[in-house]
Amino acid sequence: MKKILIIGAGRSASSLIKYLEKAAAKYNWGITVADKDIKLAQSKASEKTKAISFNINNEEATGQEVKKAGLVISMLPARFHKKVALPCLKYNKPLLTASYESKDLADLREEVEAKGLLFLNELGLDPGLDHMSAMKIIDRIKGEGHKLLNFESFTGGLVAPESDNNPWNYKFSWNPRNVVVAGQGEPAKFIQEGKYKYIPYNRLFKRTEKINIEGFGTFEGYANRDSLSYIDRYNLHGTPTIYRGTLRRPGFSRAWNVFVQLGATDDTYHLEGIEDMTYREFINSFLYYHPTDSVETKLFHYLHIDQDSDVIDKLKWLGIFEDKPIGLKKATPAQVLEHLLKQKWQLQPEDKDMIVMWHKFIYQDKTSLKPVKLTSSLAVIGEDNNHTAMSKTVGLPLGIAAKLVLTGKIQLTGMHIPTREDIYEPILKELEGFGITFRENTYKSL
Amino acid sequence: MKKILIIGAGRSASSLIKYLEKAAAKYNWGITVADKDIKLAQSKASEKTKAISFNINNEEATGQEVKKAGLVISMLPARFHKKVALPCLKYNKPLLTASYESKDLADLREEVEAKGLLFLNELGLDPGLDHMSAMKIIDRIKGEGHKLLNFESFTGGLVAPESDNNPWNYKFSWNPRNVVVAGQGEPAKFIQEGKYKYIPYNRLFKRTEKINIEGFGTFEGYANRDSLSYIDRYNLHGTPTIYRGTLRRPGFSRAWNVFVQLGATDDTYHLEGIEDMTYREFINSFLYYHPTDSVETKLFHYLHIDQDSDVIDKLKWLGIFEDKPIGLKKATPAQVLEHLLKQKWQLQPEDKDMIVMWHKFIYQDKTSLKPVKLTSSLAVIGEDNNHTAMSKTVGLPLGIAAKLVLTGKIQLTGMHIPTREDIYEPILKELEGFGITFRENTYKSL
Repeated sequence: MKKILIIGAGRSASSLIKYLEKAAAKYNWGITVADKDIKLAQSKASEKTKAISFNINNEEATGQEVKKAGLVISMLPARFHKKVALPCLKYNKPLLTASYESKDLADLREEVEAKGLLFLNELGLDPGLDHMSAMKIIDRIKGEGHKLLNFESFTGGLVAPESDNNPWNYKFSWNPRNVVVAGQGEPAKFIQEGKYKYIPYNRLFKRTEKINIEGFGTFEGYANRDSLSYIDRYNLHGTPTIYRGTLRRPGFSRAWNVFVQLGATDDTYHLEGIEDMTYREFINSFLYYHPTDSVETKLFHYLHIDQDSDVIDKLKWLGIFEDKPIGLKKATPAQVLEHLLKQKWQLQPEDKDMIVMWHKFIYQDKTSLKPVKLTSSLAVIGEDNNHTAMSKTVGLPLGIAAKLVLTGKIQLTGMHIPTREDIYEPILKELEGFGITFRENTYKSL
Repeated sequence: MKKILIIGAGRSASSLIKYLEKAAAKYNWGITVADKDIKLAQSKASEKTKAISFNINNEEATGQEVKKAGLVISMLPARFHKKVALPCLKYNKPLLTASYESKDLADLREEVEAKGLLFLNELGLDPGLDHMSAMKIIDRIKGEGHKLLNFESFTGGLVAPESDNNPWNYKFSWNPRNVVVAGQGEPAKFIQEGKYKYIPYNRLFKRTEKINIEGFGTFEGYANRDSLSYIDRYNLHGTPTIYRGTLRRPGFSRAWNVFVQLGATDDTYHLEGIEDMTYREFINSFLYYHPTDSVETKLFHYLHIDQDSDVIDKLKWLGIFEDKPIGLKKATPAQVLEHLLKQKWQLQPEDKDMIVMWHKFIYQDKTSLKPVKLTSSLAVIGEDNNHTAMSKTVGLPLGIAAKLVLTGKIQLTGMHIPTREDIYEPILKELEGFGITFRENTYKSL
């Protein structure tokens, strides 16, 4: 009996576990769900699945569990993957994750290859489904002999229209901290018409693009930091335009930029006197001193926000002008903001989230030599705040990949991401059965 | 015969060496000037002074030179001070520097005290003269029983009016790199009317203050990062407003902010394809793509720069729109900018620099209970591009301190900065003989 060890039972593991339990019933596999919180593991596991308490820092225990398994899936935060990878190497167990292939893991590549073992990373949504759906079209365009001129790709984890009841048109379906510090560090780098372009953090949320997805309305996208790395990843050398971004509903970025400009997303220092501070005082600490002017007036003047701007509704709705104690003992500005947003942008039990992905390709047709535009889009709505679209789109590709490995449909060895046809083709095909279907449109004019 | 070892013979050592050579003649001291470049050391030393070639990373040789000396002055970059401090500790030699008392040095405090040795840091201009001149007035105000309500302090290293012939009204008299990356990292932190205030980098050059210094015209100041540390340094606990800043001529900051907003001061990543890039292409890499619009138009539109703005003159004068090759093989944006500015803002041989320092104090008079405003200002003009005002104001306080230590006028032990009356009083007094005199003004209304 083959055994699957799933480490980490957080929200994004729900759909993965559900999928693999069905497959396990069919193929007579055993599943173990391991989490530091055994109750969480138990809540996700059906009767036939074993739930265990697990401490990734206990090397010996980790080794024992890995040894018993036939395949290991790590749903832990990326920084822990190495602690799973090492015993997988030791006991010759294939390892699957939904995280970026970090340097930590890439360092093991040769050893994985030498052992004839398989490590698959980036098998979730983004990274994951984005690779699969984009490469399917890129391979087809190139295979037909056309020349790719432009590749743009956007993904967003948002709230479904039916649960969208706040002026930001946004709720958290993913790690709130990542949303607060998004875009910090190195500038967004991409290539446009053959020229390298750089957008620093302070301009990122002003340089958005509008995108319309049939049936789901309008979105705006801001640039991701790492578009240039996709030249190698997708083998796009010589493609003049490569741009990856993140989707929000229109108006989100302009309002978010207020926090960026104030310095309220800074995570590098602790605020003085935070214990006694209210949200109003927090905002005021980024504004110039004035003996009588209100915090509101100072902010709107400082950042040139018109009185009739919808930015004002968004800011007021968040309660940042309220003299309400923050209630933290020690915090960076980013931590204060995260603390507030977690309360305001929380998915309620009945709320549904939404995943949107959109690719645009322009290629020069090999016969007509004219440019052709092609888009591919996906929208997935969640069931509730547990079985989210995020959990589904992260967990299902991973679950399917695990099944394909265990049933011998994927017989690769080495360390890979799903940019290869032999990986993405069967996964995308099975995903269609779950309603995860990309819709393509071809346009004769740009 | 007492011997003084001066390590480092760069531009800011010129006035120090000149001063100590005079004192040496009077007191029959010997001076050794040590530099990795023996020719530089020789060029700064008169006949009676010994110039030697010196490698700070040669522990043995450093120890030998320190052992021979009666007092050591390190003019090396701050990161090397520890390599001088350790042999000074070993051989019981007093050490003087013009640098911030780094953690590296502060770690040695107990050992210095235990040995009854004297280490004096922050003896230059800023840090140095700023401490001395401010503390003289703070001690007086407090000594007279008044209550300090406000302390603001600004320093600038600029070009003298007679050599000021570019639209930025600025030339380098100090490390160009520090000017390019000024303000990066943590936000500027200060306290105003009892409230902590934070200015992030992207807003720093927009929130300037205008300052008028009689006889020298108008300046603008932007906030330094570290005002809060002066609460402890100057014992200003309870003072409601503490703000330190850097002076430029009006209009500099608004134009500099263009580079900040573009991301052209970023020093954290290397630009792609820099080898073949011109300055025009460098600027264009931070701007959106357009098939026909000029780089100029895109920049002015992007940053809302009016056609009649003097910012345009400043930018054009720098040559950033010229299709001239940069000529660097590998560079961060900050390095490209530094490379250009070093050519444009260089002090010519006949050019004079200027140091400006300005303090503002407001205190509540102990008798009338009314607020009184007091300013203290200094302006020093250099002689030429070698005997600069910067070299004078950095080197003379250090030289005087060395003399005071060697002649027994300063008999302290331990590790100190010149915030103590027994240090600042005799130094400030002697500096007046060199025309380094602060002018005070008292105002009855704020």
